[in-house]
Amino acid sequence: MPDKTPLDSLTRLMAKLPSMGPRSAKRAVLYLIQNKEQFMAPLLAELEQAMQSTVTCDQCGNIDTKNPCHVCSDPKRDSKQICVIEDVADLWAMERVPIFRGSYHVLGGTLSAIDGRGPNNLNIQTLIQRIENNPVEEIILATSATVDGQTTAHYITERLRPFALKITRIAQGIPLGGELDYLDDGTIETALEARLTWS
Amino acid sequence: MPDKTPLDSLTRLMAKLPSMGPRSAKRAVLYLIQNKEQFMAPLLAELEQAMQSTVTCDQCGNIDTKNPCHVCSDPKRDSKQICVIEDVADLWAMERVPIFRGSYHVLGGTLSAIDGRGPNNLNIQTLIQRIENNPVEEIILATSATVDGQTTAHYITERLRPFALKITRIAQGIPLGGELDYLDDGTIETALEARLTWS
Repeated sequence: MPDKTPLDSLTRLMAKLPSMGPRSAKRAVLYLIQNKEQFMAPLLAELEQAMQSTVTCDQCGNIDTKNPCHVCSDPKRDSKQICVIEDVADLWAMERVPIFRGSYHVLGGTLSAIDGRGPNNLNIQTLIQRIENNPVEEIILATSATVDGQTTAHYITERLRPFALKITRIAQGIPLGGELDYLDDGTIETALEARLTWS
Repeated sequence: MPDKTPLDSLTRLMAKLPSMGPRSAKRAVLYLIQNKEQFMAPLLAELEQAMQSTVTCDQCGNIDTKNPCHVCSDPKRDSKQICVIEDVADLWAMERVPIFRGSYHVLGGTLSAIDGRGPNNLNIQTLIQRIENNPVEEIILATSATVDGQTTAHYITERLRPFALKITRIAQGIPLGGELDYLDDGTIETALEARLTWS
C-alpha cells in the first residue's frame, strides 16, 4: 500500500500511543479496518464521547466528566486530608480500594533530573495554594517507591515545612503475597528496617 | 474513577486491540485524554476518515480506498500471476519491495486445527473462482514458513491440481544478513537442502 493512503498516517499516529510501536500499530489498524462495524464504530463513538465529556479537575487534577471532580465535590470525602500522587492512573488505583476517604492532588509526574522535570513542571504550587486557602490537616505522600518518587516526596516535605501539617508517607515493605525469595534486596531491607512490634 | 464513567468503557474497548491489555489500554486512554488537542483530535479525524474511505477489494481481499483495489485495477500489473498470502499485512510487506508485478489473493489466515479454522473460513473458494473465470498462469504460494502456513500451502496445491497451472512456493533459506550461528536448526537444514548450484 503506497504512502499516500489514509491508513499510513493513521498507523503513524497509532504508533505514538504508549506501549505501541510501528508494527503493533499496523496490526491494530488492520484489526480496526477488518472489524469496522463490531469494533471500530463503537471505539470511535467512545473516543468522541471521551473527547467531549472529560475535563481536568481544577482543584486536584483528576480527569472526570465534571469539574470539580466527583471526589472533590463529594461532601462525604474529607477535604482536610490530601493524598499526593504522581498521576491520574495512581488516583484510579487508589479509588479501586475504597479505604481512603480523603481528597487527592495529582502532581503530574515526579521530579526528574534525566527528563528535566523541575518543581515548576509539577502541580506543587497549586498544592501549596490549596493548603493556604483551605483547612488542610494531613498530607499523605503517595509517590512511587522509586528514586524520583522519593526525591519528590522529600522535596514536597521541605516545601510544606512552614505549614503546621501532619505529613505522612505510605508504607514500604513486602507486598501482600510477596515471597521473600522472589523480592529484591532493597525491598527486604526496607521491610526489615520498618518492622512493627507484633505482640 | 467509578465504573460508570465513559472512560471505563473506552478503556475496555482499547484493551481489545492487538498488543494491548487492560493496563496498557488505561495508559493509552490517559495519554489520549491528556493530549486532546495535539493527539486525540487528529487521531479521531484519521480514524473517521479510515472508517469511511476504506473498502475491501472484492477480487483480492486487499484493503484500499477503492474497489477493485489499486493493484487489481492497475493495467500494468499481471493478472495472470496471483500471489496467495495470509493477510493484508503480508500484501503491504510484499508491496514494500516493488519486484512483484502480479496480483494478490488474501486468504484471511491459515488453516489451523487449534484455532478451528477450516478451508471454509478462508478465501479459497474465491481463489478457485478467479482461476476458473480468468486466464491465470501461475499461483505463487507465499504463506508463512510455519506449520499452519505450510499445511495451507499444501492444501491449496491439492485443491488446484485439476487446473493446468504453474504452482510455486516462495523460497525458504537463511535471511539476508543472517549469520548461521544465530539461526535455528530448521532454517539451516532447509537452506542446505534447497542449495543451488553456484558456479
